[in-house]
Amino acid sequence: MIIQREIQKLVISTPSKIVFLIMDGLGGIPHPELKKTELEAAHTPNLDGLASKSTLGLSNPISPGITPGSGAAHLSLFGYNPFEFRTGRGILEAMGIEAPVLPSDVVARGNFATVGDSGVILDRRAGRIPTSKCAELCHLLESIDLDGPRISVLPVRDHRFVLLLRGENLSPELSDSDPGRVGEFPLKVVPLSSKAEKASAYVDQFIVESGKLLKRRDGANAILLRGFSSLPSLPSFAELYKLKAVAIATYPMYRGLSRLLGMEVEEKVSSIEEEFSTLEECFPRYDFFFLHIKETDSAGEDGDFERKVKVIEKVDDCLPQLLNQKPDVLVVTGDHSTPAMLCGHSWHPVPFLLYSPSCRPDNIAQFSESACARGSLGTISALDTMPLALAHALKLSRFGA
Amino acid sequence: MIIQREIQKLVISTPSKIVFLIMDGLGGIPHPELKKTELEAAHTPNLDGLASKSTLGLSNPISPGITPGSGAAHLSLFGYNPFEFRTGRGILEAMGIEAPVLPSDVVARGNFATVGDSGVILDRRAGRIPTSKCAELCHLLESIDLDGPRISVLPVRDHRFVLLLRGENLSPELSDSDPGRVGEFPLKVVPLSSKAEKASAYVDQFIVESGKLLKRRDGANAILLRGFSSLPSLPSFAELYKLKAVAIATYPMYRGLSRLLGMEVEEKVSSIEEEFSTLEECFPRYDFFFLHIKETDSAGEDGDFERKVKVIEKVDDCLPQLLNQKPDVLVVTGDHSTPAMLCGHSWHPVPFLLYSPSCRPDNIAQFSESACARGSLGTISALDTMPLALAHALKLSRFGA
Repeated sequence: MIIQREIQKLVISTPSKIVFLIMDGLGGIPHPELKKTELEAAHTPNLDGLASKSTLGLSNPISPGITPGSGAAHLSLFGYNPFEFRTGRGILEAMGIEAPVLPSDVVARGNFATVGDSGVILDRRAGRIPTSKCAELCHLLESIDLDGPRISVLPVRDHRFVLLLRGENLSPELSDSDPGRVGEFPLKVVPLSSKAEKASAYVDQFIVESGKLLKRRDGANAILLRGFSSLPSLPSFAELYKLKAVAIATYPMYRGLSRLLGMEVEEKVSSIEEEFSTLEECFPRYDFFFLHIKETDSAGEDGDFERKVKVIEKVDDCLPQLLNQKPDVLVVTGDHSTPAMLCGHSWHPVPFLLYSPSCRPDNIAQFSESACARGSLGTISALDTMPLALAHALKLSRFGA
Repeated sequence: MIIQREIQKLVISTPSKIVFLIMDGLGGIPHPELKKTELEAAHTPNLDGLASKSTLGLSNPISPGITPGSGAAHLSLFGYNPFEFRTGRGILEAMGIEAPVLPSDVVARGNFATVGDSGVILDRRAGRIPTSKCAELCHLLESIDLDGPRISVLPVRDHRFVLLLRGENLSPELSDSDPGRVGEFPLKVVPLSSKAEKASAYVDQFIVESGKLLKRRDGANAILLRGFSSLPSLPSFAELYKLKAVAIATYPMYRGLSRLLGMEVEEKVSSIEEEFSTLEECFPRYDFFFLHIKETDSAGEDGDFERKVKVIEKVDDCLPQLLNQKPDVLVVTGDHSTPAMLCGHSWHPVPFLLYSPSCRPDNIAQFSESACARGSLGTISALDTMPLALAHALKLSRFGA
């Protein structure tokens, strides 16, 4: 992490304000008939107008060819090398619901799922049961007594929950039970190092007992666990960048990640329109704003090209409200690509736009993959995003004599 | 420094000649009314003609977003990773005036400054006193007896001097006394490691005694010290690249840096025209030429857009004289950007042109930020400059089997 530590030495505190507008999974590949990506197909007069005054480029989330998870991709955007800082899915979910996690705890992301009589997975999300149902089942599972660690089973949203184990000498170095696809059997959780044997035994026992309790239920009759992890030690935004940062995100995991980085998190935000209104409302109180749009990624994952286009157009509609705040630096990009054509995250570099009064505009009046490929930034690493934003906000002093 | 050491193994000695024409602070950002940078506003038929036969790109001096000092930026251009090789401002100034520095000496860059009755800094340059006045004051300060190390106070130019401490067990790990801005008090010099405590005490004593000697003077009544450093150990151009190199520079610091890299330095050069004549005169005697133009940076730092345009046009006028020498490789670039709009160094990538009979021309008949952004080199690191120049000069043998 040489660069991040060097940047830390150069950062100065100034009143200038930086906004990151992150459309999750923004990048796409062309629709075979339209010959356009989602962003190219969308009608985005405001983004295009902004692009004409901005510096454009493409951003590789991790390294060429690597498809990231959302946690790793966001760490990279925020300047934390994801090869160095690894945050498990479990801890991100736990942070998202403000679970009171201690450094010695082990947490995992859980799904309520549906399995057939043979035990084969039929639905990894148990038909996306409502959150109230999820809470009821979590309460049921908390009755399991492991004769050792204390367990908490915390509902997140829909079919998702967090399993928290609190005890002595527990290690999170455990494999997932979730195979990630239907038609397979849940996997056995195995210890990935000898010190995780104790935790492994407890998790096995918990899975068996859960199976018994859920057996007779329709729909949600099994659990799948993944992303065993503990509280990581991440230097905060305040410590690294002297920034008072806030996250505006509807989705728990992103709120969780933001908390791990020491950001404040705005509560009660549940739509794109509310996210932009919240930014306006809290604009005077912070100097870094992480505005996260989840719906682009969800539409891409569902393979719904049209819906992703509509989400981008909705963000474009809201953009003037953000521009009215006159941020000193505005970065518009994604954490990674989620082409609807691929129904999932991908490795394709992501359109990247940086606007600032101190930027060197490319005079390209379009925000799209093909326009960004012609931008003067070229293809950068997402790890360059924070240094570039801090530089344009005039928050970095000179390096070297 | 992996790449540099690999390059060293591949270098072969040939008669071909490489010229680096470095316009300090060349890059800019657009003037808000003209919508053009300094380089874009300048009338540069010769550079544009050269560009049409050249490979173009943009160059990041250090890393995206990082604004370098001139020393660090030049090290990078010459292939020395500035994160590995750090040269303090003091030693660069001392080399520039050919001060006879020993490896055990500690040197600092000094300013004569003006402070008010309270001690607050009113002018960090004491109204840019003439060099003759500076020499007189240096002579006065040399009368200070530190009861330990021998001190030399050596005039540089205008208000600038070099303090040299010669003694035993002196470490340069000292903080600056110069806070870098007016309206503040000079800072106390503190040791940054325990082995620098001795040097710190001597410097404190020197500052106190200087204050007494200068007290009654109008204008220059205080000193500010920064960049405490010693002779660094840098592998030479001859050792690394098998090049017999010469520097042609009007400004002491660049001559100093060149000496640290084992370059010869041409004496008695005081204008842009003289620099080009000197290149012509010494062309038969060397195979690497570092021609440094300071005035682009000075104009940028002064926020004088028009003057920077004029300096670029003057360089363009002189270019045919250089082209007549028929160098095998000609690189035209800057060490960093100094946009007149920002009145200082910046992080923006720098226009980069490489001409050689072996280059792959981009057929873009313009040398500017926007033209270079379309060049086939893309955005490179300044550290790539030496390998590219050596390669096009056919001075690098094949790597690997």
